[in-house]
Amino acid sequence: VAKIIGVLPADDRGLAEAVRRGGGKVGAPGAGLDGLVVAFGTTPDQVRAAVADHPGLSWVQLPLAGVDTYLDLMRERSGTVWTSTKGAYAGPVGEHALALTLALLRHLPERARAASWGKPAGTPLADLETLVIGAGGVALETVRLLKAFGARVTVVRRRAEPAEHADRTSTGEHLRERLAEAEVVVVAAALTTGTRHLIGERELAAMRPSAVLVNVARGPLVDTAALVAALRAGTIRAAALDVTDPEPLPDGHPLWSEPAALITPHTADTYEMITPLFHERIADNVARFAAGKELTAVVDLEAGY
Amino acid sequence: VAKIIGVLPADDRGLAEAVRRGGGKVGAPGAGLDGLVVAFGTTPDQVRAAVADHPGLSWVQLPLAGVDTYLDLMRERSGTVWTSTKGAYAGPVGEHALALTLALLRHLPERARAASWGKPAGTPLADLETLVIGAGGVALETVRLLKAFGARVTVVRRRAEPAEHADRTSTGEHLRERLAEAEVVVVAAALTTGTRHLIGERELAAMRPSAVLVNVARGPLVDTAALVAALRAGTIRAAALDVTDPEPLPDGHPLWSEPAALITPHTADTYEMITPLFHERIADNVARFAAGKELTAVVDLEAGY
Repeated sequence: VAKIIGVLPADDRGLAEAVRRGGGKVGAPGAGLDGLVVAFGTTPDQVRAAVADHPGLSWVQLPLAGVDTYLDLMRERSGTVWTSTKGAYAGPVGEHALALTLALLRHLPERARAASWGKPAGTPLADLETLVIGAGGVALETVRLLKAFGARVTVVRRRAEPAEHADRTSTGEHLRERLAEAEVVVVAAALTTGTRHLIGERELAAMRPSAVLVNVARGPLVDTAALVAALRAGTIRAAALDVTDPEPLPDGHPLWSEPAALITPHTADTYEMITPLFHERIADNVARFAAGKELTAVVDLEAGY
Repeated sequence: VAKIIGVLPADDRGLAEAVRRGGGKVGAPGAGLDGLVVAFGTTPDQVRAAVADHPGLSWVQLPLAGVDTYLDLMRERSGTVWTSTKGAYAGPVGEHALALTLALLRHLPERARAASWGKPAGTPLADLETLVIGAGGVALETVRLLKAFGARVTVVRRRAEPAEHADRTSTGEHLRERLAEAEVVVVAAALTTGTRHLIGERELAAMRPSAVLVNVARGPLVDTAALVAALRAGTIRAAALDVTDPEPLPDGHPLWSEPAALITPHTADTYEMITPLFHERIADNVARFAAGKELTAVVDLEAGY
C-alpha cells in the first residue's frame, strides 16, 4: 500500500508533485496521514497545529537545513521521525561562501562604492590559510571549492574525525588556536545552544588583523556587538554576513554603515535556487519512507540538528 | 660557460637573484650580454635603448603576459627571441575572474551599497551556461575554476582545437551564436589588431538581457562606449571590468556612476601577487637558455602574443 503523505499548506502543488514523483499518495488534510511534508514559509505554530490533528503521523519533512526554530516542537513529538533538508542546499550556499570570501579578499565592496581608480590591493586564495567551522554539507562543499582554488583548509568540528577534502581537522577546544592561524574564517556550523556566540569577543581577538570572517550559517553563531567592535577597532579586516542577529538587520544598524562589513540578506540559497533541490529531496525521502529505508537527514534531537 | 644576463633596471635585486637562481651570471650594463631580463614598470622606450646598446643580445624576457605595447620594438629586433610571462600569472587572474563573476551573479555590488535589508536575488553558477573567450593560461584557469562550480563552459578561440576542461570549443566565426547562449561571458583573450573591440555593439546586442560580462584581459577588447550604452539600455544585466579603455578610467567617466558596472583597477594580478611568479619564470627561463632548451612563452611576432 502506498504511504499517504500530507502537504502543508494543502494547496502547494510543487510539494504534491514531488510526493507523487516519489511514489507517495497525497492525502487531504484530516485524512489518516502517514507522513507530512512542510513548505517553505510555514511557521512552527502552523506545523504544531497540523501535527496535533494527525496523531498517526510517523514522519515530518521540514523545508530547512537549520531546524533550531522547530526544536521545542520536535522534542514534544519525539516519537515522530523529523527530517531536515541538511545537505540538500549545500551547493548554492557553498558557492555563496566563496563569492563572499573572494569579494573580501579582492576588496570588491570598496571597489563597488568607488568613483575613481583606486590603489592596488588584494590577496589570492591560492596557498592561503583558511578555516571552515563545521563539517556538514555546506561546510564540506565550501572546503571542496576552497581546495579548487589551492587554499590550505583546516576544518574545526565537534567530532575528532577527518573532514573530506580538508588538509587538517581540529575539534572545538582548539578553535582559538586555529583562528589565530587563518586569513579566512568561514562559519558553516549548525546553531545549537552550544554554538550560540561561537565567535565572540575572545575569538575575534584571537584572529589576525588581516583576516576576514564569513558567516553563511546562522546569525547568532556570531556575537554581533563584538563583531561591530572588532571591525571598528581593526581587530579583523572585514566580515561578510549572509545571516545576521537580529535578522533581518534593521535599518540604522551599525553594520549597515560599517565599511568593512558586507551584508547579503540571507540570499545564499534563495527560494528560486532551492525549490528544485527541496523537491528532489522530498521525492527521494518519500520513496525511502515507502520502502522502509532510512530517511535522509533525520534530525538528532539531542544534538539539535 | 654561464650565460651573461643583464637586468633592467640594473639595480633590481629581485631580478638579479632570480637570474642567479637559474644558474645565470648577472652582467653589468654595457657588458657583452647574452640575455636581458626586464622589470615591471620599465617602459618600451627604456627597453629599446637597452637593446640598442647590446647588439649581441639573443634573448629578452619581458615582465608582461600581454605584450601589445612592445610589438613594434619586437618586430624591429625580430632576430632576438622575446619571451613574455604568458601563463605565469594565470592563477591570480583566473581567481579574479571568478571573484568578479560570482560578485555579479550574487548581486554583491548592490549589496555593498545597500543600507537596508534587500530583496532576494542571485543565480548559482552550478549548471549555468558560461562562455570564456580565449584559450591562453588565464582562460584555461578560468575554465578550470568554472568547472569546479559545476558550470557548463564553452570556449571560443582562434584555432579549431578543443580547450582543456571545456565542455565545448568554438572558433571566432561563431562568437555571436555562442554569446546568445551564455549567462556569463568572460573575456580572457590576447589584445591584437584582430581582437580590438571584439565585444562591440553587435556582440552586446547578441547577448541575453540576463547575462553578465567580465573582462580580465585588456580594456580595448571591449568597446567602452557600446558597453555603457548596453548597460544603460539593459541590453545586458551587468559588467565587471578589471581592465578599461581608457585606462586608468578617468574620474567622471560614465562607468563610475553606472550601477550595473563593477570596476577593479587592474588588480587581478597586483605587483605583490605576481612578483614571486615572475621570479620563478625568470629562473626557469635562464636555466633553459643556458641549457639550449626551448624557452617558455616565446612571443609569436605574427600573432602578436
